[in-house]
Amino acid sequence: MNGPSLALRQRSMGDLSAEFPLFPPLTRGCPKTSTDEIAFPLDVVYDYAKVDRRLFEQAPGPDLARWSPLLPPLDAPTLGEGGTPLVPFGDVHVKDESRNPTWSHKDRLNRVAVSAALASGAPGVVVASSGNHGASAAAYAARAGLPAIVLASADSPPAVQAFLRAYGAKVVSVPGEKRWPLLREIVDRLGYHPVSNQTVTHTGHPFGPEGYKTIAYELFLQLGEVPAAVFTPTGYAELLYGVWKGFTELHLLGVTERTPRMFSCETAAGGPHAKALAAGLPAAVVELGPTDAYGVAGSVGGHRGVVAVRDSGGEAVLVTDEEMRRAQRELARAGLWQELSGTAGLAGHRRLRRDFDGPVVCIATSSGFKDLGVGGERYPVLEDPTLDDLIP
Amino acid sequence: MNGPSLALRQRSMGDLSAEFPLFPPLTRGCPKTSTDEIAFPLDVVYDYAKVDRRLFEQAPGPDLARWSPLLPPLDAPTLGEGGTPLVPFGDVHVKDESRNPTWSHKDRLNRVAVSAALASGAPGVVVASSGNHGASAAAYAARAGLPAIVLASADSPPAVQAFLRAYGAKVVSVPGEKRWPLLREIVDRLGYHPVSNQTVTHTGHPFGPEGYKTIAYELFLQLGEVPAAVFTPTGYAELLYGVWKGFTELHLLGVTERTPRMFSCETAAGGPHAKALAAGLPAAVVELGPTDAYGVAGSVGGHRGVVAVRDSGGEAVLVTDEEMRRAQRELARAGLWQELSGTAGLAGHRRLRRDFDGPVVCIATSSGFKDLGVGGERYPVLEDPTLDDLIP
Repeated sequence: MNGPSLALRQRSMGDLSAEFPLFPPLTRGCPKTSTDEIAFPLDVVYDYAKVDRRLFEQAPGPDLARWSPLLPPLDAPTLGEGGTPLVPFGDVHVKDESRNPTWSHKDRLNRVAVSAALASGAPGVVVASSGNHGASAAAYAARAGLPAIVLASADSPPAVQAFLRAYGAKVVSVPGEKRWPLLREIVDRLGYHPVSNQTVTHTGHPFGPEGYKTIAYELFLQLGEVPAAVFTPTGYAELLYGVWKGFTELHLLGVTERTPRMFSCETAAGGPHAKALAAGLPAAVVELGPTDAYGVAGSVGGHRGVVAVRDSGGEAVLVTDEEMRRAQRELARAGLWQELSGTAGLAGHRRLRRDFDGPVVCIATSSGFKDLGVGGERYPVLEDPTLDDLIP
Repeated sequence: MNGPSLALRQRSMGDLSAEFPLFPPLTRGCPKTSTDEIAFPLDVVYDYAKVDRRLFEQAPGPDLARWSPLLPPLDAPTLGEGGTPLVPFGDVHVKDESRNPTWSHKDRLNRVAVSAALASGAPGVVVASSGNHGASAAAYAARAGLPAIVLASADSPPAVQAFLRAYGAKVVSVPGEKRWPLLREIVDRLGYHPVSNQTVTHTGHPFGPEGYKTIAYELFLQLGEVPAAVFTPTGYAELLYGVWKGFTELHLLGVTERTPRMFSCETAAGGPHAKALAAGLPAAVVELGPTDAYGVAGSVGGHRGVVAVRDSGGEAVLVTDEEMRRAQRELARAGLWQELSGTAGLAGHRRLRRDFDGPVVCIATSSGFKDLGVGGERYPVLEDPTLDDLIP
């Protein structure tokens, strides 16, 4: 029932009639519809008529290859990504993506993007990221035997700096404004395959959201139904769009009868998708204020997030660091320690205070080990404690 | 096919004819056979005749409740523990236990041990641990709504100190030699349920290995056969014994025809099970030298590890920090970043250099984020890098 990829071609999200071959992946956005202000991403089109619907009768589990007909070719070997648990959490369900190979959702994207690098015959992969995305790309490149360059910034947490360097990639901390010109130079001159964004509004890797859509398949199998609403931490909205696309495919294939509302939970320090939706723009760029939620702190939004919120009847929700800290505490006090950015989904649900006609899923994206400040505190030793010192 | 627990009673590992009711769990070892030098643990006996063998036809996945007939009662709610991937890795398979709720194998034990605390009506749980075990106990206690006291030492890595405190437990760093008397006092005076060891040689919680035995069930389902050999990082050998017990149950139930050889991979800085096996003792205590593998660095061994190695036809293998570092690097360079202690299984396999008649599994227990030194290094920023600075 699973088998070869049924991916047919790339299609512009700026003009659905503009189609391109599946390879090479158009990592600089749609060449036909992008302008100096707005870049439109590409989407992947499949031969849906050939999909065996028994694909959705299997048990969810690790390794995205179980969904191979509905993914681009998976040339890169698995690290056992996906198949993460859905944990009941009061009135919602938490999809714990910290349970991936590098302890964030990014592994789903990188299995697919590093596969594209291999299928393209690239001599390596390059990524500009100071956190989860960079480490995950490094891990999948290492697994596939490809060199990787990670353009990091100096301000990620010390433990994350070690994480980025663990997998043997060439990791270089460079000043923030130099990362994207360097990325472009590495792509142009070394032929490395880029797995992060290169455009004025976000387009990223055209295959990236394909990895994330497997979350929708898993949620359907885990719940036994389609959730009424999904709240996701949103930076560039690749996760948001990917999950939305997965549910639209289940609907298109006749497996399900409805689709969920998608809530883009963005930091109040930025919020480019909220701005684009409010202004009726296909995508937007915003000024970014201070925030500790560095995993979702981007000034650059993309068209994918706008499409997912608009077409699903959802909303963009802005959450403050204080609201994320509350959500982080709520999760940790029930046994789930998440990175601050990873709690934006629950924080958005708590802020919205809305009832839904069916299950609600909050996606939690990443382990608490990756937070700013982790490892920075020191705790005193009690030399001669009494029982009173120990009672909670 | 799964259903209520078929656990019947506790049985002494010092005298198989000495049986005790299932509750209370005898957390201070067998009262009949233990001496001042050797403490014997209890084991859990089940009504195996009532087990539906279709239990072993299900897909492996998160939540130990899928194995409920063969576990003590699971009163504590799940965090989605278990169902970790088995990653092909050259000539071996790596069972990646960093994919549990608190990113180590300990979650399997704590689901079961915190359940015992709830079933016993204890007002809280107490644990002496500076690392994975303490954080995992804190997480499961939090999830179950029970207070937890963690008696930590001051020398665990800073990021792990934050991890221990994330779940809202009362965490107190106390001098090493005071931890066990305090633990005993908290048990005796507050009635807290202990989830770590209290005896002269290790006995630990009698239900602990029951959680670990689910790894054996998963390995059988993931491989489609019984491995020829299993290499586990070994401190107290609860993991080693648990996996062995799971395979003996599969054999006893007629599901499988053979059992694997079990290899106890211990730090060369200590190695109490290696010593006991060499000396023909039921358990041993050793002097502990310096090692960075703090997760497996114990001077106190237990009878369980001796039984697992002896009855399986396995061996104890001592590995140096240098050998673990090599194994850690080998794993990370293929996309799996493990805590140093967590690589002892692979390090043991590499040291032994032996061929086996069937698949070999190395259990990797924990995320690299928990290592000593993580977050302690600083990396320079390249202000004006050229392409030559970036090429791997």
